[in-house]
Amino acid sequence: MFSSTADAQAGKALTAAVITISDSCASGKREDLSGPAVAQFLQELRFEVTVRETVPDDPTKIQNLLIRLAREVQLIVTSGGTGIAARDFTPEATVAVCERLLDGVGECMRAEGTKKTPLAGLSRGVCGVRGRALILNLPGSPSGALESLKAVAALIPHAIELLSGKTEHKH
Amino acid sequence: MFSSTADAQAGKALTAAVITISDSCASGKREDLSGPAVAQFLQELRFEVTVRETVPDDPTKIQNLLIRLAREVQLIVTSGGTGIAARDFTPEATVAVCERLLDGVGECMRAEGTKKTPLAGLSRGVCGVRGRALILNLPGSPSGALESLKAVAALIPHAIELLSGKTEHKH
Amino acid sequence: MFSSTADAQAGKALTAAVITISDSCASGKREDLSGPAVAQFLQELRFEVTVRETVPDDPTKIQNLLIRLAREVQLIVTSGGTGIAARDFTPEATVAVCERLLDGVGECMRAEGTKKTPLAGLSRGVCGVRGRALILNLPGSPSGALESLKAVAALIPHAIELLSGKTEHKH
Repeated sequence: MFSSTADAQAGKALTAAVITISDSCASGKREDLSGPAVAQFLQELRFEVTVRETVPDDPTKIQNLLIRLAREVQLIVTSGGTGIAARDFTPEATVAVCERLLDGVGECMRAEGTKKTPLAGLSRGVCGVRGRALILNLPGSPSGALESLKAVAALIPHAIELLSGKTEHKH
Repeated sequence: MFSSTADAQAGKALTAAVITISDSCASGKREDLSGPAVAQFLQELRFEVTVRETVPDDPTKIQNLLIRLAREVQLIVTSGGTGIAARDFTPEATVAVCERLLDGVGECMRAEGTKKTPLAGLSRGVCGVRGRALILNLPGSPSGALESLKAVAALIPHAIELLSGKTEHKH
Repeated sequence: MFSSTADAQAGKALTAAVITISDSCASGKREDLSGPAVAQFLQELRFEVTVRETVPDDPTKIQNLLIRLAREVQLIVTSGGTGIAARDFTPEATVAVCERLLDGVGECMRAEGTKKTPLAGLSRGVCGVRGRALILNLPGSPSGALESLKAVAALIPHAIELLSGKTEHKH
């Protein structure tokens, strides 16, 4: 239904960045378990994870990093900072740099997550588009991050293809 | 639970406009299959489809058409332009002219659509109110448009009744 | 997974305000059935309902009340004004005073409600944070209000704990 992009036709892997957003991980007080788990799962989805970064819960630092990476990779996945604690700024920083938001992706992550724990409904993670890059927010816990990513794994490569290529038919 | 409107009491049909939003349909390069399918389904729901138009994916043209039709009909259904391709502007144009948005309608269309294809989660279609008219965005593909419309068919006449009439009891 | 707050450790009840938002209830034309039902259910959840108020569907009055109560209680639950009638202003007033919105809470109420009636998809109720208070909009009908509250009852105490306390681990 959709034409493949030149990259996909050539068999090239889609590129991804994985960002851990956490004061305690950035300062070395806590080991980052979510970032490596997310990166590994993306590799199983045949993404090439070309960037791995850790930043504190600082809105300006998060925004600057998203802006830079959106020029370098096709998918940016963040983990952490999606809750309602005072230092949870990831959704606001993501909304600030995105040109379009895909509400259905956050809905889908929460609806799937709610099947395991009602607390999934508190996650404020969003998904949006900046340029030709897709930005996806996951929760900070390793299990929450992986479950949310799995819930939308079928959507993500397709969305990136739409962003980077021509479509023969619009959905 | 709700008082009927004068129109409904008199057995008058609710009026609807069906708009196809697509560069290729507007230029005649592609046959519009979604518009006629949507119009037929609305007639089965006992709507009188008084307007059928096709416009290109041009935000200003879409907005102007929505503004004009909101004075003429009770329901405006659009098909097309809800995706994330560069020329998908329908949700933005709809949000720009609506006074209120009904987030639950988009949620419902995506949740139902996801049961058939995960890609339904990428649709950005919204539903909103301008004056006494309800505006509903459907995807561009005939199957996607019909499935989305069916998912919310039970809501639409009721919402229009609320917009045009008095309520005995607020939900 | 989360550290308890000092209050919870001391066994203190969480405090709540219940607001009925309705022109007809405020003017005495209609008996308020939803407010008492919501208050009773919150007490069963071991909240201490310290405030019960009724206000008309006036955006400024609603906002002023929310602003004042957010300094006095940990949870503010409103009932009424979430529909699409001309005098339904509760979601707008809530959004105006909140610093953060929890989209997943409204999604959850509508998804649960839709299992009973498709009309639940028309409710525009939101949930948000002002300071350390959580504000939750419920529909105006007693059954709709109770069903919506029950749909998110497992989330609410946890969200309040996150707002008032420290977290050992961010979700």
